Amino acid sequence: MSSSNSNNIYNEVVDETVTKPKLFIIKIGGNIIDDETNLLSFLKNFASIAENKILVHGGGKIASRIGEQMGIQPNYINGRRITDEATIDLVTMVYGGLVNKKVVAKLQSLQCNAIGLTGADADIIPATKRPVKEIDYGLAGDITGELRADKLNLFLKNDLVPVIAPLTHDGKGQMLNTNADTIASALAIALSKFYEVRLIYCFEKKGVLENVDDENSVVSLITRPIYKVLLADKKLFGGILPKIDNAFAAIDSGVKEVLIGDANDLLQNLTADTKGTLIK
Amino acid sequence: MSSSNSNNIYNEVVDETVTKPKLFIIKIGGNIIDDETNLLSFLKNFASIAENKILVHGGGKIASRIGEQMGIQPNYINGRRITDEATIDLVTMVYGGLVNKKVVAKLQSLQCNAIGLTGADADIIPATKRPVKEIDYGLAGDITGELRADKLNLFLKNDLVPVIAPLTHDGKGQMLNTNADTIASALAIALSKFYEVRLIYCFEKKGVLENVDDENSVVSLITRPIYKVLLADKKLFGGILPKIDNAFAAIDSGVKEVLIGDANDLLQNLTADTKGTLIK
Repeated sequence: MSSSNSNNIYNEVVDETVTKPKLFIIKIGGNIIDDETNLLSFLKNFASIAENKILVHGGGKIASRIGEQMGIQPNYINGRRITDEATIDLVTMVYGGLVNKKVVAKLQSLQCNAIGLTGADADIIPATKRPVKEIDYGLAGDITGELRADKLNLFLKNDLVPVIAPLTHDGKGQMLNTNADTIASALAIALSKFYEVRLIYCFEKKGVLENVDDENSVVSLITRPIYKVLLADKKLFGGILPKIDNAFAAIDSGVKEVLIGDANDLLQNLTADTKGTLIK
Repeated sequence: MSSSNSNNIYNEVVDETVTKPKLFIIKIGGNIIDDETNLLSFLKNFASIAENKILVHGGGKIASRIGEQMGIQPNYINGRRITDEATIDLVTMVYGGLVNKKVVAKLQSLQCNAIGLTGADADIIPATKRPVKEIDYGLAGDITGELRADKLNLFLKNDLVPVIAPLTHDGKGQMLNTNADTIASALAIALSKFYEVRLIYCFEKKGVLENVDDENSVVSLITRPIYKVLLADKKLFGGILPKIDNAFAAIDSGVKEVLIGDANDLLQNLTADTKGTLIK
């Protein structure tokens, strides 16, 4: 292995013939964040993971609750939430402060040396305000430019566990609101050069269901040929389709595999014998 | 130089005969944080510092304003603000989220690779809930145990600039409210083993004044003998005395010098020809 940049030992040129270390990137959303018991139980499992790991969290309902208390009116256009100035301050404070630090402090108590970050910290996630087309989403950020894999590597190689809030920045001093699923996927892609990445989305169901009314009808594996058959058979529809499409997009960009599953099955879903839906 | 811990290249045994690199630890409070113009002007100067640097910020008035909006009643006992549960959540979100990330994003726009941290992140500042004596201060943290100089060193040596909010944690999952002056001093002491530290407190005046009514009567140097004379002459009193006592305590613990001065004089106060009060 040779170094592409003599000043930075973490920006290595990777020899593809050498087995890469494993990295789990795990995203949790409102169903975990908003429930103290679920959160603690999840964090205990997360802290116990021996391999490299990164946690990405969404915002949950608490921002809306605090926004209401502060008299911040949610701003919607065509059913889409717009991030105005009051809202970006609100989510910066709630996602980047309250939720992020609560998770970090809890992980510290579980002997997991967590470090809470937004995309602005160490410049890890550069973004641009979403271009105005039909709708002006306000201070929503689309991830553009290269993620700072060197800094993320620096943390991982020094036993720090990044805990990442759904916020980015525009490089001009403005924080931006960014979807946590998108952040998790961008991190997975950027780090797949250095790691064998399994990207895990904790979901409200056990996995992708073949029959939405049957919790036990989890599709255990989706490859492109299997996906084609499932679509042709009209087994899948609705909100799960963009998730699967995004998973394949990540895989096309180097991510080894994507798993969609229940947070309670996390430890099982780290193994080869997954309980959720493995996409690869 | 040999390593005291082969697993960690940053926990070096320092050879005292070798000149240590310079480190400026700079603390700003409400008079900077609460004023956009002052803040931006300060951050421009701060970003321009070529040497190692750490920024510690206080909270400012914005937490009280947001607390009022949220209907959180400030809780005082004998004139002392008590950190109850609602208040620790409030300051975690405002100091650790809103203020911290606003500063980080602004520094990023000034080509300064800032990383926002609380004491919980990377476990940099372990603390304990202040013991109850006459008053129960609630969730206020006293810094106990060793700061993680290894992690702070890791950041500094990799061109990251720590921006630290006035929050610590108890290692049991609880965030704690901690005075920013105290945090700045503790950081200076912990890092003086590796760096020649000048600890700079940005103050509302140009420095310690010999005559409180005369802004130009700055005492340019205070050593212990000079301090004795100033006290004997009854030139100093009030709130400045504990600040000077704390400065000497830091110096006794290895910090090279402490400077008290106006944020507008920051660049001058980094040099040998200071405009504020140098304590050593």
